[in-house]
Amino acid sequence: MTPLDLNADLGEGFGAWRLTDDEALLEVVTSANVACGFHAGDATTMRAVCATAARRGVVVGAQVSYRDLAGFGRRFIDVDPAQLADEVLYQIGALEACARAAGTRVGYVKPHGALYNATAHHRAQARAVVEGVRAFADLPVLGLPGSELLAAAGDAGVAEAFADRGYTPGGTLVPRREPGALLAGVDAVVARALRLAERGEIEAVDGTVLRTGARSLCLHGDTPGAVDNARAVRAALTGVGVAIGAFAG
Amino acid sequence: MTPLDLNADLGEGFGAWRLTDDEALLEVVTSANVACGFHAGDATTMRAVCATAARRGVVVGAQVSYRDLAGFGRRFIDVDPAQLADEVLYQIGALEACARAAGTRVGYVKPHGALYNATAHHRAQARAVVEGVRAFADLPVLGLPGSELLAAAGDAGVAEAFADRGYTPGGTLVPRREPGALLAGVDAVVARALRLAERGEIEAVDGTVLRTGARSLCLHGDTPGAVDNARAVRAALTGVGVAIGAFAG
Amino acid sequence: MTPLDLNADLGEGFGAWRLTDDEALLEVVTSANVACGFHAGDATTMRAVCATAARRGVVVGAQVSYRDLAGFGRRFIDVDPAQLADEVLYQIGALEACARAAGTRVGYVKPHGALYNATAHHRAQARAVVEGVRAFADLPVLGLPGSELLAAAGDAGVAEAFADRGYTPGGTLVPRREPGALLAGVDAVVARALRLAERGEIEAVDGTVLRTGARSLCLHGDTPGAVDNARAVRAALTGVGVAIGAFAG
Amino acid sequence: MTPLDLNADLGEGFGAWRLTDDEALLEVVTSANVACGFHAGDATTMRAVCATAARRGVVVGAQVSYRDLAGFGRRFIDVDPAQLADEVLYQIGALEACARAAGTRVGYVKPHGALYNATAHHRAQARAVVEGVRAFADLPVLGLPGSELLAAAGDAGVAEAFADRGYTPGGTLVPRREPGALLAGVDAVVARALRLAERGEIEAVDGTVLRTGARSLCLHGDTPGAVDNARAVRAALTGVGVAIGAFAG
Repeated sequence: MTPLDLNADLGEGFGAWRLTDDEALLEVVTSANVACGFHAGDATTMRAVCATAARRGVVVGAQVSYRDLAGFGRRFIDVDPAQLADEVLYQIGALEACARAAGTRVGYVKPHGALYNATAHHRAQARAVVEGVRAFADLPVLGLPGSELLAAAGDAGVAEAFADRGYTPGGTLVPRREPGALLAGVDAVVARALRLAERGEIEAVDGTVLRTGARSLCLHGDTPGAVDNARAVRAALTGVGVAIGAFAG
Repeated sequence: MTPLDLNADLGEGFGAWRLTDDEALLEVVTSANVACGFHAGDATTMRAVCATAARRGVVVGAQVSYRDLAGFGRRFIDVDPAQLADEVLYQIGALEACARAAGTRVGYVKPHGALYNATAHHRAQARAVVEGVRAFADLPVLGLPGSELLAAAGDAGVAEAFADRGYTPGGTLVPRREPGALLAGVDAVVARALRLAERGEIEAVDGTVLRTGARSLCLHGDTPGAVDNARAVRAALTGVGVAIGAFAG
Repeated sequence: MTPLDLNADLGEGFGAWRLTDDEALLEVVTSANVACGFHAGDATTMRAVCATAARRGVVVGAQVSYRDLAGFGRRFIDVDPAQLADEVLYQIGALEACARAAGTRVGYVKPHGALYNATAHHRAQARAVVEGVRAFADLPVLGLPGSELLAAAGDAGVAEAFADRGYTPGGTLVPRREPGALLAGVDAVVARALRLAERGEIEAVDGTVLRTGARSLCLHGDTPGAVDNARAVRAALTGVGVAIGAFAG
Repeated sequence: MTPLDLNADLGEGFGAWRLTDDEALLEVVTSANVACGFHAGDATTMRAVCATAARRGVVVGAQVSYRDLAGFGRRFIDVDPAQLADEVLYQIGALEACARAAGTRVGYVKPHGALYNATAHHRAQARAVVEGVRAFADLPVLGLPGSELLAAAGDAGVAEAFADRGYTPGGTLVPRREPGALLAGVDAVVARALRLAERGEIEAVDGTVLRTGARSLCLHGDTPGAVDNARAVRAALTGVGVAIGAFAG
């Protein structure tokens, strides 16, 4: 049986600011989505995360973003697709240098925040992200099932599900500012993970049962209780015999 | 006889702004110091310069800088050396991705502006730059003869001279805001280049004759008449039989 | 008869980069839309433009923008309206300090680039811009006739027309990347200005005649021949006896 | 007897990042040093801090900085003094707009981080800061006794002491990375505050007793236990009958 990957957004500080408990989360996940400097992530943080990831055998992924430090990459930007592809390439290259210096490599790419949401339906930007990835190398691209991003990625696409985000009946994420955007409490998060791992099912906010073939489960690193949630999910999964392992690398 | 390299700073635009005539200069130089996003250089410009450089057989170098778009990298920043090394690594990596996508590679590194000036005498920052380069690969480092930068680089150091900048009797560059900082007129620039290529000599602002073993000659791209100066220098050098060729790649 | 105002975007450099010939344009226009640091405009440029404007009796306006130096404010950003209002307030305040130090004041506000285009139809962002202006003072807001921006501004709204931009039959601007976005040649620009000033008419790209009550005419500063166009327009207008004068101040 | 002012650095977040507990500290201090966007402080944070400060009767001050978000304003930048003055003016103006929208005004100016340290001894930058302030208005300038900054400010200078920072025998602050930079524990901080308020004395790291006429006491907001320290200091001071009150406004 294919092991389940656990991914989380890491390295989301910038200069004096911190957001994610990178050390703790790197004890839990198998894939680290590392911010590359466009929404967060200075070079020092990037190297530090890569070094710890390499030591723990966690695969490093490039979490590429719109250029938007002030908005943490959470606002849609109508950037020209050709330029977006270039910026994706730039970010992957910067992280690759940090990863190689730490004895590892960039193993996959995942868009961050508003770019993730936009590439679910914005075909030109989705293709631009994939074009930027391919200009670098044939790396796996992590995304939402049914998204334009995974359609553009073709065989390189890897589907993920979210442990702590609410889903609409249509299989998209409930926007962050709407009710139900985040599952409440560690029990709900663990239940989501178990049901997904054991039955391939996600329950949407209205009770609709979505079937999904997610190969990776995203554990957010920037929410309250992120580390506790992540540990509880991993413990619950291994407790019922679910194999945990990276999809890339 | 070792050919003489001609290098110039290129890709020094950012977004809507342009500074250097990259296309024209890439017809003249053998090495392109490409801005990597910290003092100038967006991803689209970087890819475009790399593509043209690759097509023309010009070697791509990473012109690394302090993080200072507002100051164009021309102000000394007392950045922590460990962090500086990380930022150097980040910039090289970003450019490497652009270069590889264009079918070439980063062949050397040269600090820009205030970082160039600082690493002439600031040992900790000079070592940090070299450490950042080595964390990436054993690339040549272009710098001023006698600088801490070349001392730190050891065998990887490559000495350069400036075609259009005034020199102090001590062999350092006359600061940009002082009189004599720039040679006046294309004739003076050509004379400087010829004397350097033929006799290994540079005349300082006070008439002192400096002996130098420069392997590369820097033709500035952001000064008035930059392209005309560059063409005249190259024509004059080839006219007297000086071989022109890159030091790296 | 109400005099016609001539406005232009000025101060659109940043650090080492320049885009607009501020000195020359300040000899022609009656209102200066000054970049406030979010798409262009460092503090030194802002003070310099304000000083020249004050000396020439040109009214200073705040050209507020999305926070997007890399994109020159030309990409739509889906910023939260409340935050947009705050950013508008911030920009006006920064310019006001520069203006007061030069012996003048901010006399009006005009959104730049993508924010200008968005607030033509995006009601929440249009209202946010006006809210940001009002949080500062009851200043006039310059915008496109029929726009949500002018609707939100109410009595404070001032309609403008563009001397060099193509119009759709619906009265909106032809997007910059489409054919017909810019009028070709100084004659076409002058003809546009004269017809507008004398008959209140603008001819759209398909020949449709639009009636407009524009109180101000925008002369772009960042297009090729910008200064020549601006001078020709002013000369033609005064040649036929059109009174030129600012709407604010 | 002149009341003692309590000041703290506030609003030091940026976008998604937070550093200071602004709400809690605004219950304790009488003067709020508000970040103005150059080392921290987005427009939304600035307005929020101003609104709370206005409600609580806390005086708003502009904490001006080098332009250095990536370094949190903690690295010396050799910026041209004329440009520094412009940037100081810009920052004060931006905050003034936020303050006025909240029903208050900027009551004083204090340099942040490396600019604070530099202007202790760097005469040209010290004068530039004061020039930037005066270009705005005749506001008080908060600084270190004996500093070039206070010398340049003349009668507008207001001396402050630090509740939690180590002092050298010469009266300067122990650099942040050296031992003794921060007083250890709330008791030491309270003892420092009491001795200063009651006897005008500060004990340096080597035991030297410094005499100081500080009119304001700085309580840091970004250190561990910042809020607890601040509350303990205020309680101890009022407990012994020291009057607390702002120096400006």
